[in-house]
Amino acid sequence: MSIDIFNEISKSNAIMDKALEERFKTNEPIVSILLDAEHYSVMSGGKRVRPFLTLEFCHLFGGKTEAALPFGMAVEVIHNSSLIHDDLPCMDNDDMRRGKPSCHIAFGEANALLAGDALLLYAFELCAENKDVEPSTALEAIAVLAKATGNFGMVGGQVIDLYGDTHTLDFDTLIKLHSLKTGALIGAAVKLGCLAAGVASDSEEYANACLYAKNIGLTFQIIDDILDARAGEEAPEKTTFLKFMSESEAFEYAKDLTDKAIAAIKKYEGSDVLIAFAEYLLNRDK
Amino acid sequence: MSIDIFNEISKSNAIMDKALEERFKTNEPIVSILLDAEHYSVMSGGKRVRPFLTLEFCHLFGGKTEAALPFGMAVEVIHNSSLIHDDLPCMDNDDMRRGKPSCHIAFGEANALLAGDALLLYAFELCAENKDVEPSTALEAIAVLAKATGNFGMVGGQVIDLYGDTHTLDFDTLIKLHSLKTGALIGAAVKLGCLAAGVASDSEEYANACLYAKNIGLTFQIIDDILDARAGEEAPEKTTFLKFMSESEAFEYAKDLTDKAIAAIKKYEGSDVLIAFAEYLLNRDK
Repeated sequence: MSIDIFNEISKSNAIMDKALEERFKTNEPIVSILLDAEHYSVMSGGKRVRPFLTLEFCHLFGGKTEAALPFGMAVEVIHNSSLIHDDLPCMDNDDMRRGKPSCHIAFGEANALLAGDALLLYAFELCAENKDVEPSTALEAIAVLAKATGNFGMVGGQVIDLYGDTHTLDFDTLIKLHSLKTGALIGAAVKLGCLAAGVASDSEEYANACLYAKNIGLTFQIIDDILDARAGEEAPEKTTFLKFMSESEAFEYAKDLTDKAIAAIKKYEGSDVLIAFAEYLLNRDK
Repeated sequence: MSIDIFNEISKSNAIMDKALEERFKTNEPIVSILLDAEHYSVMSGGKRVRPFLTLEFCHLFGGKTEAALPFGMAVEVIHNSSLIHDDLPCMDNDDMRRGKPSCHIAFGEANALLAGDALLLYAFELCAENKDVEPSTALEAIAVLAKATGNFGMVGGQVIDLYGDTHTLDFDTLIKLHSLKTGALIGAAVKLGCLAAGVASDSEEYANACLYAKNIGLTFQIIDDILDARAGEEAPEKTTFLKFMSESEAFEYAKDLTDKAIAAIKKYEGSDVLIAFAEYLLNRDK
């Protein structure tokens, strides 16, 4: 039976949307400005591929949706925090996000900055209050998430990205940039799904899930570079994969990574959705 | 025996400085920019009153320094994150902090923004890796810290503060502003000290520690307003306590709060340092 990956993502998104929707409401005056800015960003129609991975890996290894849900939400709110901060004038200075004014255009720079901060913090509140896992598991998830997002994770990757605006990066640094900026949070999404299912972080299952995450994360970025180049949206100052190889070589490289991702998980019953997802990331045209 | 509170704070600071100093070093190229910005801010000679409270409450209730240290560091790095973000041009636009160029002046706005983000995240890594407390205790500490700093804590207070730049606040909102913006993190510092000592969050000791924190937090702010007014540094658009009462009435109000703070903890053996600290906050002249 062939998998309709869009339908699978859409089912996961319906669960996440419902869970997130209620989280940014308050009767508290003034503070409601902050919650409105967070709601505006979190509920603005992102693809939610990270929490999809959290739920899928939890299901793959026999866990329950309730245990994965707070972890998936945590990953998603951190992702949205990074988008709000990335869009700020001192960073990428993007006025539009997902077809709407960016958070700082809609709510002002200071409120956007604070909304991003609050979302980072809220992620840990969500993880700490996950009552469907053991305390030691929630704690491990928090350590994984904090490391994946901090100095040697997402934020470290953002610093390399900024540096790349004014410096040419070598190939290894380009790989490091993407491994940290986007790869680390994708890795955390997958790891938190495994932890929610009770998979130990020193198990073979966990290691295979990490391999999958690492390879699809890089694939995602290579295909992004190819699509940007085709659309003529390649920022001239940015080092991309196409500075090091032709488009067809880049696609072959991504295909090889996708094969590795699939090989890491195909032996697990129920991995067909994750296989279809990896193929979708490789073959997408937008 | 009379307590030399400066000596007590200085002993605590020596412990914190030593523990924090090593945390912001890396051989990783480029990411070192981020760590340098964090080190610059965290090691720039803050008074570290929050981790002092964490260590003191841990000692008061019979806990060990090692158990309180990661929690105190976590509180301190979050405090420094908030200062970095508060100084940014879109917030208070302060070029100087502790007698030195602010983080964004020294490292650029984007790196300062990211350094603040990374410090928020690092706080949770520190808490999650506290091996000197039970996993359930570390988890409780994380929940306390995330709530105290997020939407209905520090960041919520920053939003009320911003709102107060262009709106007159009533007395209750002024109290809420300070309870959230500075009070919540002071409360978390005290609570994390209690948790590190194994004090249960539903105990009388914990409730009394919270009372102490609440009352010294507000005292701190009232005295700040008095000192700013005396120095002629009162921002004209800001609502302060002196909009609602005379200087002597404000001092009496703060003295009453300090009495309540002391009453909450004086029955505990070894509370003389915390009593001296509350009196110092009330009677300080800078």
